[in-house]
Amino acid sequence: MEDILEENIEEIKKLIKENNLTLLKEKLMNLNPADAGAILEELEDNELLLALRVLPKDTGANVFSYLSNGKKNLLAEKISKNELGYILKELRFDDMIDFLEEMPREAVYDILKNTSDEKRNLINQFLNYKEDSAASIMTIEYVELREKMTVGEAIEHVREVGLKKETVYTQYVVDKLGVLVGIVSLRKLVTSDRGLLIQDIMERDIISVNTEDDREVALDIFKKYGFLAIPVIDNGRRLTGIITVDDIMDVMEIEATEDFHKMAAVSPSEKEYFQTSSFEMAKNRLTWLLILMISATFTGSIIKGYEDVLSKFTVLSMFIPMLMDTGGNAGSQSSTLIVRALATGDVEIKDAFKIMRKETMVALTCGIILAIVNFIKLTFIESKSVIVALTVSLTLIFTVLMAKLVGATLPIIAKKLKLDPAIMAGPLISTIVDTMSLFIYFKFATALVAK
Amino acid sequence: MEDILEENIEEIKKLIKENNLTLLKEKLMNLNPADAGAILEELEDNELLLALRVLPKDTGANVFSYLSNGKKNLLAEKISKNELGYILKELRFDDMIDFLEEMPREAVYDILKNTSDEKRNLINQFLNYKEDSAASIMTIEYVELREKMTVGEAIEHVREVGLKKETVYTQYVVDKLGVLVGIVSLRKLVTSDRGLLIQDIMERDIISVNTEDDREVALDIFKKYGFLAIPVIDNGRRLTGIITVDDIMDVMEIEATEDFHKMAAVSPSEKEYFQTSSFEMAKNRLTWLLILMISATFTGSIIKGYEDVLSKFTVLSMFIPMLMDTGGNAGSQSSTLIVRALATGDVEIKDAFKIMRKETMVALTCGIILAIVNFIKLTFIESKSVIVALTVSLTLIFTVLMAKLVGATLPIIAKKLKLDPAIMAGPLISTIVDTMSLFIYFKFATALVAK
Repeated sequence: MEDILEENIEEIKKLIKENNLTLLKEKLMNLNPADAGAILEELEDNELLLALRVLPKDTGANVFSYLSNGKKNLLAEKISKNELGYILKELRFDDMIDFLEEMPREAVYDILKNTSDEKRNLINQFLNYKEDSAASIMTIEYVELREKMTVGEAIEHVREVGLKKETVYTQYVVDKLGVLVGIVSLRKLVTSDRGLLIQDIMERDIISVNTEDDREVALDIFKKYGFLAIPVIDNGRRLTGIITVDDIMDVMEIEATEDFHKMAAVSPSEKEYFQTSSFEMAKNRLTWLLILMISATFTGSIIKGYEDVLSKFTVLSMFIPMLMDTGGNAGSQSSTLIVRALATGDVEIKDAFKIMRKETMVALTCGIILAIVNFIKLTFIESKSVIVALTVSLTLIFTVLMAKLVGATLPIIAKKLKLDPAIMAGPLISTIVDTMSLFIYFKFATALVAK
Repeated sequence: MEDILEENIEEIKKLIKENNLTLLKEKLMNLNPADAGAILEELEDNELLLALRVLPKDTGANVFSYLSNGKKNLLAEKISKNELGYILKELRFDDMIDFLEEMPREAVYDILKNTSDEKRNLINQFLNYKEDSAASIMTIEYVELREKMTVGEAIEHVREVGLKKETVYTQYVVDKLGVLVGIVSLRKLVTSDRGLLIQDIMERDIISVNTEDDREVALDIFKKYGFLAIPVIDNGRRLTGIITVDDIMDVMEIEATEDFHKMAAVSPSEKEYFQTSSFEMAKNRLTWLLILMISATFTGSIIKGYEDVLSKFTVLSMFIPMLMDTGGNAGSQSSTLIVRALATGDVEIKDAFKIMRKETMVALTCGIILAIVNFIKLTFIESKSVIVALTVSLTLIFTVLMAKLVGATLPIIAKKLKLDPAIMAGPLISTIVDTMSLFIYFKFATALVAK
């Protein structure tokens, strides 16, 4: 697939160079807008501008919606407000809101100067929804029906307005006050008798989200029920918009990315890698690096506490990195598994006890095998004394056990305290486990080696 | 939402206890099958069995498809083959394949004994598709059309067969040999003139996947184009099935989970947490723990190489854990960001140079601030000598720089070598960075402290 993209880019660039606008237009129109967007993304700025201008407005707007935010903003700067207004008018409502959200507010007002009052009010309302709310990802392009319509009338209505709507596969039935009273799928419309009334065939048991709900609530509903769209209602149960499955897939990806970032001790950001400035990126990473660096002081003070033992038996210092790493890794394994299982719903808070039992079994199996391998390695290959090998191996078993229990428990405690379990991952667990593993190590060392 | 679930469970349990089967049936029938499944999941085994038996076969099968694999297998053991056969017959084809895939082959043959030859052959074909292939997630329940049908005939056809199909929102047009020649959306059908021929309105430019493609290829297509379903074709371009967006959302979640596991040095497994035996889980985690434990030998040998310096200046050993941790954390941050950005397509291999430049800027910003904080802490709060504070702080800057470059580069190299970038995450990066940071530390220590 990549190769085909490369070829197309070459061809488009060639057509632009030759100024063969007729062929350029034809070529772009034949592509799927998503593909055309991906190709235009790779062009030089002036090439991109030209390519977009040869397209008819609706196709142009469609292709525009697939560009990255970086390119969109660049275009917003380079083309006249008039032209931008045209493109925006042709964009789907949710794509337009996405675009406007990224721009400075003054620029938005400037662009919207020629928009009708009604539409401008609606846009303002959308721009004011909270960033992670269900409302922030909804669209208003749905088909509305009334209870007293017949199936035949409803199908006629879909025919008339359907091509302009984001989805026609679910219709929303509202009363005079705009309150959502039912939903009808297009499947149901098409397979029902044309003379029936909508109120006879509509589904009244509606699963919906509130405008103020977190978008994750919407995501969970899609995952559970496999819908193609769900309605968003306000506190008066009035229909304010719908969320479609393609937008929820974006949310799913963004939420997973956020978890990845949190688990690597990076403050999550929705911006793409190259969209984030170096300064901002440093800020996102610095907080946790600082916290973790300062907490590592504890580990240092444990070493300081056993300075005598260490200076007498310098061989012991050799194994500090290995023990710390193994503890950290064993803990990260458990915490990551549990954080992810909590996120997907595989495990719940109430399973805490079962999890601890399971982790204990896993930890003992892993710990004992690691200890045996390590003992053989130290005595036979590295010719260390049996007592040193025993100290390190025993520490390994207890470190792995403790690491896995801490790693599995902290995310559950976090969830119980209504914190995000994802912060209880790798880096934080490592720091906690390091301190504990050194403590175990020196306890064994003073009891066995230095006695 | 959780609370409502709890309440329902109590009520269902009460109805079962009172043996009030009429109300139990009514109550369960009124719930969305996904909700009923979630409730039944929480019942005792014999309660579950009873609840499922009061439901009509089709609803029962629908609810069954929402149970966890653990409960499904339990039911398969407890109920007669005859009864299981009934449930399977009513299941959607892809749900049935999912279920049968989890069972031992002999049991499958046993259950399928009463199935028609044609269907059994089809099932066998599906069970033989590679586990992660596009074919493994497809369904055969789609609506087929012919080119010469009129729009009116096609709508009539959808009306007749549509209720039994997984999706009716895209129709697939095949020729006599079963070769896919076009697709038509229900939106298009409904908004077109009833007298037109399918060949006049169908889309001929079809985006499809091959049966043998990895399911991630299908996922990428859904993410890019926002389709509701895509066709799966064999090497002869014959239509063999379709993949629907709800199944692709499952894939998206599974693929993200796999990445989380790989990044925590756990061999990925598709089984849920409690479905995996302790022994299997230990095996999944042990490989990497062993590899990483043994590679930490390098770190130990660096310490051994500088034993003289360490025994003379024991204060230096205090900072080893902090330097190792900070290096590991800084490296994990970069590697996780890049691994995830590669997975979502935010960055590509060709961006390597731009990424290195950006990471250098970020690393210097972070490293210098960490070094300053550390220097102040060591000299003013912990009253260490300026020369020691300087050694540790300089090491910090270089460690963070090196960690971020290694962390950002290795995933890109892995991708270039067609390996999975996710293995180049936290644990492996930490081990590599540990060795390098200790090396830097002792270089500065011998140059400044021990000179």
